[in-house]
Amino acid sequence: MKNKLYYNPTVNPNIFNEIKKEKEFIGYYDLPLQDITYLSRLDKFTQKHIVVVGIGGSSLGTKAVDTFLSYQDREKKLHFIETTDPITIKQVLKSIDIDDAVFLIVSKSGGTIETIAAFKYILSFKELNNKDFIFITDLDSPLYKVGEEKKIETFEIAKNVGGRFSILSAVGLVPLYLMGYRVKELLKGAKKIRDDFFHKENKVKDILLKKASFYAEHMLHYNINAMFSYSELFRDFNAWYVQLWAESLGKKQINSELNVGLTPVGLIGPTDQHSFLQLIVEGPKDKTVTFIKIKDFKDNTKVPNKTIKELEKLDIVNGVKFETLINMQADSIIENLKNRQVPLDVIEIEEPNIYYLGQLFYYYELLTSLTGKMLGVNTYDQPGVEEGKVILKEKLTNL
Amino acid sequence: MKNKLYYNPTVNPNIFNEIKKEKEFIGYYDLPLQDITYLSRLDKFTQKHIVVVGIGGSSLGTKAVDTFLSYQDREKKLHFIETTDPITIKQVLKSIDIDDAVFLIVSKSGGTIETIAAFKYILSFKELNNKDFIFITDLDSPLYKVGEEKKIETFEIAKNVGGRFSILSAVGLVPLYLMGYRVKELLKGAKKIRDDFFHKENKVKDILLKKASFYAEHMLHYNINAMFSYSELFRDFNAWYVQLWAESLGKKQINSELNVGLTPVGLIGPTDQHSFLQLIVEGPKDKTVTFIKIKDFKDNTKVPNKTIKELEKLDIVNGVKFETLINMQADSIIENLKNRQVPLDVIEIEEPNIYYLGQLFYYYELLTSLTGKMLGVNTYDQPGVEEGKVILKEKLTNL
Repeated sequence: MKNKLYYNPTVNPNIFNEIKKEKEFIGYYDLPLQDITYLSRLDKFTQKHIVVVGIGGSSLGTKAVDTFLSYQDREKKLHFIETTDPITIKQVLKSIDIDDAVFLIVSKSGGTIETIAAFKYILSFKELNNKDFIFITDLDSPLYKVGEEKKIETFEIAKNVGGRFSILSAVGLVPLYLMGYRVKELLKGAKKIRDDFFHKENKVKDILLKKASFYAEHMLHYNINAMFSYSELFRDFNAWYVQLWAESLGKKQINSELNVGLTPVGLIGPTDQHSFLQLIVEGPKDKTVTFIKIKDFKDNTKVPNKTIKELEKLDIVNGVKFETLINMQADSIIENLKNRQVPLDVIEIEEPNIYYLGQLFYYYELLTSLTGKMLGVNTYDQPGVEEGKVILKEKLTNL
Repeated sequence: MKNKLYYNPTVNPNIFNEIKKEKEFIGYYDLPLQDITYLSRLDKFTQKHIVVVGIGGSSLGTKAVDTFLSYQDREKKLHFIETTDPITIKQVLKSIDIDDAVFLIVSKSGGTIETIAAFKYILSFKELNNKDFIFITDLDSPLYKVGEEKKIETFEIAKNVGGRFSILSAVGLVPLYLMGYRVKELLKGAKKIRDDFFHKENKVKDILLKKASFYAEHMLHYNINAMFSYSELFRDFNAWYVQLWAESLGKKQINSELNVGLTPVGLIGPTDQHSFLQLIVEGPKDKTVTFIKIKDFKDNTKVPNKTIKELEKLDIVNGVKFETLINMQADSIIENLKNRQVPLDVIEIEEPNIYYLGQLFYYYELLTSLTGKMLGVNTYDQPGVEEGKVILKEKLTNL
């Protein structure tokens, strides 16, 4: 992974030491080092359909991997029930062979009301048994206890690993392993970024510190961060980033009453450069932009050498590989935004494989931690999300 | 459709008259009144696979309808080639029976480089003929001329109908009619909002004027507008809204050098209230929020009356319809954000059918026009998007 930054802020070096301290008690940092022999407990599950029942942090990372690797031929199929929308729940279930499916109930707290509602619905046509269900939850949560009682294969989420930072824990690894994805490579990619950041005085550390410094310093001015990804494969990675960034950084500062935070926007290059780009180019100067590119799509598809009468002007595209075209589009917009003095950086991964996605996950988790530290917030809690849950419970109780 | 506003700005009544004037020369306003007998030219196309080749305004509205109606049983299948990503192009083509497919090449300018690149790629395995291709483009565009030359069934986009305002023109109606969707109902829904706005002194006009006034007045403070939709069916409607809003409003003011614009964010309730909501509740007060709800999902799916030992506390959800649950979630977050003094409004449609989607399209187009007028921008051009296209053409020429 290469990352080039087109701005150069001053950096407060103390932040690095604070993150090193935080690493001792926040769980996600060391997930790339975990022993994954526990995943062999999954080898007895051979179902073709793998159904993740979980919301937000419990599903988005897994989905990001599955979408990213969607171009590969796969024997199994991954499904997500991550909503209370009855129409979608039924659509998803319709696409599954219920007799050849394993259901993963994923809830960190073990009591997420929507997840349990969907779980109960599934139980109306499939009895709870240890062949077709797997639980992923905190130790000693209500769901964990159901697992003990009913002898369900249950995987634990460490207490100090937050839901939105859990892609490299059992939350992500269990469904990805069941799908046959190379989870070792995923962790290896993450470990590469981890080691580069914590052990070596190198560019990764520099760049992450610079980016976080810039975001924090200009938070009032540039209150929006756009991720401009140049491949459809990133669609759900964008969504994963949006929830991570929004929920981690939108907070009251620890030592003040000030509400801070940065608003993430996920864009897909070839589509959004035809529309949203207008707002970035001519709208208020309130956005930073990160471009994500794939250097080598491993795909030789070309625009054929075909001239169409009346469209001869567009023969300039003849014989050009689509992967060249999409990256040239990216480079054009990068040049365009540089001319417009938009603060931007460019990330380029070598090719679309799980190793590089592991790098990206860890890179963005680190960037979130650093930015949170600089903004002066608690990156790992979510008091604002809890308020609505309390109101919902009241409404249900009074129904 | 009901719309309730929880703020009450003062309104400049002149804006209404300015929009009435604009209606004389901007084409989308009267699309709901069009004669659609021309669509019968499509009756000879009976292919099962309908493939829209087009980007941005050429595809997003059609996709929004198709996703919204995805719960219906459909005989035909709609596909979209709206990217230059080689992996996605090949994925889409793999899912199509090429011998039972009609390709709709949609490009307003008739020379969109990415669309023509994909078109040429399709021509490498299917010869251009008037049975399997349809063009939708401006009169006398390069593509239009190809159509004349090759006797391809070609549908015209009126010059004064912009791409992102074209869902109710042939751009949307042709593929939707081919799919068997009730396009008359779509137009009828749009006409209802049009008539309510232009002919009657009623709530629709009031509310739209108030919303636009509020957005314009507070553009520096509330520079972000979130659409919080409470059904997965709205996923692509959100995307349609995002491009419409961003590309129409992100501009230099006509009479000044000031860069203005409002940043749209599309959220799906049951997922994003577990994450992004944190940023709205505790982050900077820079967002307005519009909730979109469906009153009656026409779905009786219930959470079964099942008690799970250790999870007895969640029995409050037993016997509750999922449609009740999802709307109760919405109401909880609405209450939550009202308590937090977030400026918000709530749109509720009766049920998920195409008539109400027609209302929503037209409602948002009107709101965009009104807000653009109040921001003092040209809502209908996109000079910022053109810059990157020029650079791309240079790069391709010098390749």
